[in-house]
Amino acid sequence: MISRAIGFEKGFELSEGNFFETFEIMLPKLMKYDVMVQNIAISINPVDTKLRQTGKGTKAPHILGFDSVGIVTQVGDQVPHLVAGDRVIFAGTTNRYGSYSEKQIVDSRIVAKLPENIPAEKAAALPLTFLTAYELLFEKMDLVSKENGNDATLLIINGAGGVGSIMIQLAKWAGLTVLATASRPETADWCEKLGADQILNHHKDLTKQVKKLGYDALPYIAVLHSSDHYYDEMADLLSPFGYLGSTVATAKDHNLAKLKAKSGSFVWEYMFAKTDYDYHIKSQGEALTLLTHLLSTEKIQSTLTETLDGLSPETFYHAHQIVEADKMIGKLVIRY
Amino acid sequence: MISRAIGFEKGFELSEGNFFETFEIMLPKLMKYDVMVQNIAISINPVDTKLRQTGKGTKAPHILGFDSVGIVTQVGDQVPHLVAGDRVIFAGTTNRYGSYSEKQIVDSRIVAKLPENIPAEKAAALPLTFLTAYELLFEKMDLVSKENGNDATLLIINGAGGVGSIMIQLAKWAGLTVLATASRPETADWCEKLGADQILNHHKDLTKQVKKLGYDALPYIAVLHSSDHYYDEMADLLSPFGYLGSTVATAKDHNLAKLKAKSGSFVWEYMFAKTDYDYHIKSQGEALTLLTHLLSTEKIQSTLTETLDGLSPETFYHAHQIVEADKMIGKLVIRY
Repeated sequence: MISRAIGFEKGFELSEGNFFETFEIMLPKLMKYDVMVQNIAISINPVDTKLRQTGKGTKAPHILGFDSVGIVTQVGDQVPHLVAGDRVIFAGTTNRYGSYSEKQIVDSRIVAKLPENIPAEKAAALPLTFLTAYELLFEKMDLVSKENGNDATLLIINGAGGVGSIMIQLAKWAGLTVLATASRPETADWCEKLGADQILNHHKDLTKQVKKLGYDALPYIAVLHSSDHYYDEMADLLSPFGYLGSTVATAKDHNLAKLKAKSGSFVWEYMFAKTDYDYHIKSQGEALTLLTHLLSTEKIQSTLTETLDGLSPETFYHAHQIVEADKMIGKLVIRY
Repeated sequence: MISRAIGFEKGFELSEGNFFETFEIMLPKLMKYDVMVQNIAISINPVDTKLRQTGKGTKAPHILGFDSVGIVTQVGDQVPHLVAGDRVIFAGTTNRYGSYSEKQIVDSRIVAKLPENIPAEKAAALPLTFLTAYELLFEKMDLVSKENGNDATLLIINGAGGVGSIMIQLAKWAGLTVLATASRPETADWCEKLGADQILNHHKDLTKQVKKLGYDALPYIAVLHSSDHYYDEMADLLSPFGYLGSTVATAKDHNLAKLKAKSGSFVWEYMFAKTDYDYHIKSQGEALTLLTHLLSTEKIQSTLTETLDGLSPETFYHAHQIVEADKMIGKLVIRY
């Protein structure tokens, strides 16, 4: 099966020009758990821009794209829960052609059916960021994935980004008190609108701001921006038996000993670890089913803030410019 | 209340001579949760030797000692579960006079009653190491504190030390497959006798030995010796979503990024974090009650291997020599 796709041959910087091109790619035969999906709306994540710069991702041409809403067109031999025509949502993997493509193949175990009442572009904004927030809170920290299941305080560094925007809402659903950081009036407003209880400014002294709110220390801290910059301060702010979680790679070594006297934990969340290592894969399909329930029942709202149209090199170049500027509030979606 | 105790005025090295002295210390008034205990048998832990070297611990004279079995002689106003005459077990705290003393005061919430069928010196060997093993496995890693509650493999670096000797048994009780490291024939035998399924030699290439047993990676790794030495190798050996746990301070910074791609966790266990920070203190009394059940029902055995007698400077000097030599198998107990 041939699919039109947008990709690139070698990693490039946006300043060098637009090296996104249109390719006709050959999709392989479906394996037993696979489905083929005709993509309708996909979203761009910060990881896309990193992979474009470094030229990593799939074999060349690199066809990125990790979020999609689409229609199932074919199903493998062992896919009991989906049929052709189903509208679905998924975040995909790093090891297959992605969603910058008319059609793609994805493991059905990481796919959820999307109820009719949820618009495609609103849902497409969410899967990768939702899975990251869900796994960090409920699998890597010891929080309970249940409405009002928790009674504790969570600090989110960079509340207005893609992961932060959904984490604020998921944490509120789960009963947590949420302190979120934002540094501009518009990002602060966004975090507040999503339910954050307190907004802190990460360009000012965070420790002082936390203590002014009456906290000596915090039991759950999610660093969604520059782990290198925040590690030392957050390690000091962490409560005994607390969790310091991070999603952003570190370039430097860090002083783990800072966490010892309080029996602290440092936990990483990387959403693709499950599919990269074939670890509890179907838990991602299950988590995305929860996402669709939360959207349907309006417990959480889409973090979509910007929509572009068209499966073209120009659209993707523009989308990468927007995301790479690192000022993004919420998520950008492209409709095909 | 005056108590005879063994302590020191300033930190010292054993090579300088024996600066342990006998003191008459004044024990303060009981607070509401406190009990006073007449110590019968106490044990020496590696942390004692570190505190003796650095001169830390309580205010001078430093009266160390973190494990005891004794008889309750007085109870505070809010101690519903204990009366004078009860035989009890506890690991104590770093912030009060310890068990190198005829009598001491301890918070009753970190104390458990000891059934009559368990000899004092056998029980006294265990509390600090048991709490460390218990908290690392069941509170810091995501394992289940239940007989046969788990189905996974745990690697213990330094299986024959105090914490390792009880962790092997506690992990077997909880259903885990246990790989324990030991480097001498007698420590290897000891680990095997305690129930370890496989013995590896930590003076040889551990990764090779683990792979030879058929494991590509391991989901639970407890480093009970030199975190600085083992961090890099164990970070590489860890499974996706795995837990790398440690009880031994690091002096160097470490490359946390090694754990990112597999969503790994690095967790510290320091048994005194709870009493230092007033965090869920009574969970330690509850865990020690489990210890007494496991001992009574012979699900686990004491790790006692050596007993000395007498509350004297000479006994403590000798005991510190033995423990500091870092060749200890199991635990050393002193009977008063």
